[in-house]
Amino acid sequence: MRGPRYTEIVRGLPSTVPFVGPETQERARGRAFSARLGANENVFGPSPHAVTAMQTAASDVWKYGDPENHDLRHALAHHHQVAPDNIMIGEGIDALLGYLVRLLIAPKDRVVTSAGAYPTFNFHVAGFGGDLIQVPYSDDAENPQALVAKADQTGAKLVYFANPDNPMGSWHTARKVADAINRLPDGCVMVLDEAYIEFAQEGTAPPLDTDNSQVIRMRTFSKAYGMAGARIGYAIAHQDLINAFNKIRNHFGVSRIAQAGALAALADQKHLNDTIARVAEARDRIATIAGKNGLIPLPSATNFVSVDCGRDGDFARKVLNGLISKGIFVRMPFVSPQDRCIRISAGTQDDLDRLEKALPIVLQEVSD
Amino acid sequence: MRGPRYTEIVRGLPSTVPFVGPETQERARGRAFSARLGANENVFGPSPHAVTAMQTAASDVWKYGDPENHDLRHALAHHHQVAPDNIMIGEGIDALLGYLVRLLIAPKDRVVTSAGAYPTFNFHVAGFGGDLIQVPYSDDAENPQALVAKADQTGAKLVYFANPDNPMGSWHTARKVADAINRLPDGCVMVLDEAYIEFAQEGTAPPLDTDNSQVIRMRTFSKAYGMAGARIGYAIAHQDLINAFNKIRNHFGVSRIAQAGALAALADQKHLNDTIARVAEARDRIATIAGKNGLIPLPSATNFVSVDCGRDGDFARKVLNGLISKGIFVRMPFVSPQDRCIRISAGTQDDLDRLEKALPIVLQEVSD
Repeated sequence: MRGPRYTEIVRGLPSTVPFVGPETQERARGRAFSARLGANENVFGPSPHAVTAMQTAASDVWKYGDPENHDLRHALAHHHQVAPDNIMIGEGIDALLGYLVRLLIAPKDRVVTSAGAYPTFNFHVAGFGGDLIQVPYSDDAENPQALVAKADQTGAKLVYFANPDNPMGSWHTARKVADAINRLPDGCVMVLDEAYIEFAQEGTAPPLDTDNSQVIRMRTFSKAYGMAGARIGYAIAHQDLINAFNKIRNHFGVSRIAQAGALAALADQKHLNDTIARVAEARDRIATIAGKNGLIPLPSATNFVSVDCGRDGDFARKVLNGLISKGIFVRMPFVSPQDRCIRISAGTQDDLDRLEKALPIVLQEVSD
Repeated sequence: MRGPRYTEIVRGLPSTVPFVGPETQERARGRAFSARLGANENVFGPSPHAVTAMQTAASDVWKYGDPENHDLRHALAHHHQVAPDNIMIGEGIDALLGYLVRLLIAPKDRVVTSAGAYPTFNFHVAGFGGDLIQVPYSDDAENPQALVAKADQTGAKLVYFANPDNPMGSWHTARKVADAINRLPDGCVMVLDEAYIEFAQEGTAPPLDTDNSQVIRMRTFSKAYGMAGARIGYAIAHQDLINAFNKIRNHFGVSRIAQAGALAALADQKHLNDTIARVAEARDRIATIAGKNGLIPLPSATNFVSVDCGRDGDFARKVLNGLISKGIFVRMPFVSPQDRCIRISAGTQDDLDRLEKALPIVLQEVSD
């Protein structure tokens, strides 16, 4: 009996599971984390109105969600002053990135990103057989000029650029981003991942330009809107590119509960602004805690702070493991020299009290 | 300026939106349906414990869901008496079908299904460039022997077989299904879609055999468990095939709320059994209503009844449109001769009162 005949692409993919969640680590250590600061989740959570909307929708969950995501799409169009046809709702940015790669990338097609940038994007590129070309970070930031130059040089069909960046928290001005967009080579699409944009200051996002068929912007309800577990994000682009998603997406894929929650979350901009302020406070406190312990907090336009531990990746990993062993879930960049840092998401006061208490002890332990 | 360069597969796909939801129809007609009986949703809804679990999880939605879906996977393993490694949780069967097709089907690879069977499967096969070969229904039922014979003859890598069937509601005995499985040609995988299996009588599903690497069973929380809008389903298969999903799936794709709801729904088998009984009553009543109006209800092992309108597809479509114009959302098979039927999902007493009232009027109108 001969079993499944996988495609050539699939046979070439690694079988190790590339993503390990905090629950997996909790099961391995036999107890829950006391502070969950590793996944850039938003501990301050969604608007209470969004929670209520999701709870109400839970009673109606026997119905499929609207496959057009009509109401949310129209509300987002109004919010962003674009047309509903310029918006595609998806099961989180991860799913939208997967669809986008699938639309554009056949085996051997070239794709450009930064070494150490969002691994799920790389996972999708590999998953469709694309040839991923990586440009180094420059001064702990993605380098849009270098990304576009590399795309030009290699004939890439797609270039990934996150602004602000994860895992470093760095960002570029709207002007610099617009300049990179203007230099995009013919036939190359830039996916501008703006998952963290609500945390950045004015002048970080270039104006939306849905006439430009070479740029697709990714936004999400997972970060500033506090709904990571609901799985809902959206893309903004030229209507032809948006419409192409309809050729391949799971039309009924977005949860009815998530649609209802996102609609209510979007309507509560006061809660969003309160959250942004609380995140800014938490970021400041993380920076203070880091500084008091002789570590260097990097500037951040996101809901996390990358903290330079001052030595190499091995040392940072020891600090990371020390914190984890004390119940504080954090993560770190995985490419040198960014891996001299650990990445700490904004937490509640309690979370950061725990961090403040644990960090000097951990540093003492790892310096022995 | 040159825009996106789509893959050859994508360029060949139709740009019409293949799936139209009831909300789209409601927006077009300017008012809501008064009975929603077209999408094989389960009007009786999930266990109240599942609703409570989802409402509780909504407060925790700032966290991503567990990418391993550990708790639900283990509960399902216990429920089905298989190993957790034999289970893959996904964002509904639709997403799991997409992943499965992607694992196996490269352009021009052959896939067998029945003409008129689940269109979302066909959508995925087309979406990955597969060559879809269709076998006719036989006596309003999928024909497993013919499906397997066609797979053998064409060297297909994948064959789709739903038991019970949608849209006809027909089914085969476990013995007949097992016989087809035994005849699967080497290297051919059967996806056995059992979305409706909980509604069928004992002896419809063959025993689970996770040693057989050629069969993957699809199950869902959308139908008998009443959670269509939550987007959660699962596959049961040999652990190697299950593990292959990890190479390509969206690891964080399943909603945290859906995971919590499904876990609670699974634990409430009493509610499941009550639902099954209520669905059986509703099915009987649909049959009675059809019979009183001179139409022929087909036997069903699902939560819907296909009703033979006694003439051709044009006539059935008139009946369907008549019901829709009276606020009763129903659908119909789209291949002849099955399209002589309309498909009516089990409804509440109120829903079926409305059907009972509308149907004779509609038949009067369309017979003029």
